[in-house]
Amino acid sequence: MDQMTPLAADTSLIDALREIVGERGLLLGEDVALRSCDPFRPVPPEGGIIVRPASTEEVSAVMAFCHERGQPVVTHGGRTGVAGGAFTARDQIVISMERMNRIEEIDEFNQCLVAQAGVPIEVLHNAASDANMLYPIDLGSKGSATLGGTISTNAGGNRVLRWGMTRANLLGIEVVLADGTVVSAMNRLTKNNTGYDMKHIFAGTEGTLGIVTRAVVRLVPKPASQQVAVVAVPSYDAVLEMLKSARKLPALSAFEVMWQDYYDLMANSNTGRRPLETGSPFYILMESMGYNEEQDEQQFMAFLENSFEQGLIVDAVTSQSLAQVQEMWRLREGGEVFAAQMWPIVSSDISVDVRKTDEYVGKVRAKLSAAYPGLKMVTFGHLGDGNIHIGIHVGPDTVEEELNVEHILYDTLRDYDSALTAEHGVGQVKKKFLPDHVEPGVLTVMRHLRDALDPDRLLNRDVLL
Amino acid sequence: MDQMTPLAADTSLIDALREIVGERGLLLGEDVALRSCDPFRPVPPEGGIIVRPASTEEVSAVMAFCHERGQPVVTHGGRTGVAGGAFTARDQIVISMERMNRIEEIDEFNQCLVAQAGVPIEVLHNAASDANMLYPIDLGSKGSATLGGTISTNAGGNRVLRWGMTRANLLGIEVVLADGTVVSAMNRLTKNNTGYDMKHIFAGTEGTLGIVTRAVVRLVPKPASQQVAVVAVPSYDAVLEMLKSARKLPALSAFEVMWQDYYDLMANSNTGRRPLETGSPFYILMESMGYNEEQDEQQFMAFLENSFEQGLIVDAVTSQSLAQVQEMWRLREGGEVFAAQMWPIVSSDISVDVRKTDEYVGKVRAKLSAAYPGLKMVTFGHLGDGNIHIGIHVGPDTVEEELNVEHILYDTLRDYDSALTAEHGVGQVKKKFLPDHVEPGVLTVMRHLRDALDPDRLLNRDVLL
Repeated sequence: MDQMTPLAADTSLIDALREIVGERGLLLGEDVALRSCDPFRPVPPEGGIIVRPASTEEVSAVMAFCHERGQPVVTHGGRTGVAGGAFTARDQIVISMERMNRIEEIDEFNQCLVAQAGVPIEVLHNAASDANMLYPIDLGSKGSATLGGTISTNAGGNRVLRWGMTRANLLGIEVVLADGTVVSAMNRLTKNNTGYDMKHIFAGTEGTLGIVTRAVVRLVPKPASQQVAVVAVPSYDAVLEMLKSARKLPALSAFEVMWQDYYDLMANSNTGRRPLETGSPFYILMESMGYNEEQDEQQFMAFLENSFEQGLIVDAVTSQSLAQVQEMWRLREGGEVFAAQMWPIVSSDISVDVRKTDEYVGKVRAKLSAAYPGLKMVTFGHLGDGNIHIGIHVGPDTVEEELNVEHILYDTLRDYDSALTAEHGVGQVKKKFLPDHVEPGVLTVMRHLRDALDPDRLLNRDVLL
Repeated sequence: MDQMTPLAADTSLIDALREIVGERGLLLGEDVALRSCDPFRPVPPEGGIIVRPASTEEVSAVMAFCHERGQPVVTHGGRTGVAGGAFTARDQIVISMERMNRIEEIDEFNQCLVAQAGVPIEVLHNAASDANMLYPIDLGSKGSATLGGTISTNAGGNRVLRWGMTRANLLGIEVVLADGTVVSAMNRLTKNNTGYDMKHIFAGTEGTLGIVTRAVVRLVPKPASQQVAVVAVPSYDAVLEMLKSARKLPALSAFEVMWQDYYDLMANSNTGRRPLETGSPFYILMESMGYNEEQDEQQFMAFLENSFEQGLIVDAVTSQSLAQVQEMWRLREGGEVFAAQMWPIVSSDISVDVRKTDEYVGKVRAKLSAAYPGLKMVTFGHLGDGNIHIGIHVGPDTVEEELNVEHILYDTLRDYDSALTAEHGVGQVKKKFLPDHVEPGVLTVMRHLRDALDPDRLLNRDVLL
């Protein structure tokens, strides 16, 4: 086929796909053009074809057909990823999981949920909540992000330090390989060492080894209590001291740190995000979720009082109602505020040895300031897990300067025990930096596995490596 | 080389290995003959050669050499596995990790420990404890079982329901591939999505994809309180009710169930294992480990009282001292007692949907009783995780009847949501049953990955598939 002809002009291809998924299973023309592969700006799938299988069997048939033709595909979940994992080139068709959005079962006794890959995380939350349980993965994009997408990226979010990343909440998985083979390992048992563990082979591989079609996730009992506090902290050493002792709170569910630059931007944004006065070097949002309200609250308050007495906290506010809980979380999840005030923006998701995070942030700031006098930079994130996000604006030409900014961010990272990506993945965006951040032997294994399961690179071929 | 000549007669092979690992790195003759690949009976490595590399570089050089010669190897950790994973045939050399037994670092802030693969689990426990932390993996064989062996088998043990299996406690890994390539991913960060996650690719693959040489494991703060109780429970429904509410105890660290047959055998063994009268259908050992003694104890006692009021418990004893804690655990870890009283024995490690475990046990007992009038059978295990162990003696010809007994055990299992092996692995022992217990697509993926990383099957070739 002519490289310059869009895939959507190939009527024999379209007819064959329609044969498999039916009329409802196919989107073309404007339905494709109006859809974006990026959560922040319009990036339509360039191939112009979206296939929407309604069952595992249809995914399998689509892949068997694509395998025969050597037709590359990109799998779409909620398209909330910021690493370019959903970008779809001219010669690629999209397989969207949006019609596979059924929750099949909630098993109250074994505390797990069986669902198709296209179910949005928030829908899982609501279903679990109705059964008096909690699906622990919680992230800002939960309204759109899907089960399959979060499995493929091993998504993290706000409560990782209590319940782990997505893979830690995964019990079973069903996947379709590049050649259409269905791999079913829908385990719901805690302990199962019967051969290689499929969920761990496929989770976090960004859709390059297979298409997740269904999964079993664990639920936990719905917490009966929730305490949230925002505290102002005088130094990074005090942040570390707080973290060290906070880890002994059995019900601790979040330890989110906001550097002064981030907090001040939020507090001055006139969006009602100002629980404390500005001016402290650090602010921490702490959360505890437990099963015994009286004891949980007592432990949480005792921790705060103790920290205050030790001079680790200079100011604090605690939630008195669910509305206040939500308000405090709005402070931490203020992405749209700094995006609006700092656009265009380069954002970053990294992990650093917690002891050195502030040192790293300082180095990056110094290097960026030297290069860009108009620098605006905000730092915040899941410090309890060593994971921070940095938002950077260097002026109207931020987009043109992106590669240089990224080099400063990621090259500086190499001086530390660190991760190029903590929770967002490599995708297409960080692909060029990958070889500098993992050992050569790791790249060798990655290539061997990808060659083994998808030798023709049909699945998400432009991501990772 | 002649199939009938033992490998140990090949002096050129031995000289070449000595060249790599030195005199101390090589065991031959009686040193090999006196060593067993099985924890219960003498099964010497048939090849007659044990290589003991002292560093990752030496492991790499040994494998590069073996790769060139097409020489198969079997990796040995503590040789405590009961699935035959360490059995070594006539044409295979042993690579023992026993000299790679160094703890390299304890990182108190990031709460992790860096060690070579040959360190026994108990040594990790002691080192963690000295630093006021806990390595959560706890298993009966901890005195001999090694870090590398427990990673390769994804070992479980007593406290999985609180802290997860070995893979959940693994942060970083270093592995040597079949061709000698070193794969280093010694991550110590909680969140790291930088490409495929090496620790999860290699953990639980029973040494078939690579040889684990070093690892980083997470530690948790050392618990400040420990409560243990043994309770007598009138029915399996009561066991399930107890489990359901026990899951809400934030400090719950073990929920071990003993069927009456197991408890009575222990209680009547004259080994001081009789905390309660015999005669109840079920006994539960519950443990709580927390960081606030007063609150933990209060919650634990309130739980027991509440269960008693609901009629779920008919009798109970709680620990008043560390000595009593150890005594209660001796009851549960009474392997040597029933091994002595029921020898020869077939033992089994499986998972079943907890709701159906007792039904499964009843079916197995009925089938075995019908076939073997002299049946002795005891059931116990980590029911909080759905994992039980069954010990079976059918008479003096138990060994001859083993295959038939296993068919009854594992064929019956297929009627349930279940796992052929929960925590012990497949090894050589359960290999023949594997295809009946995982879907064909899973076997396909396993073969593809193994072919990709070890096409000549040099590593532990007789295990798994």
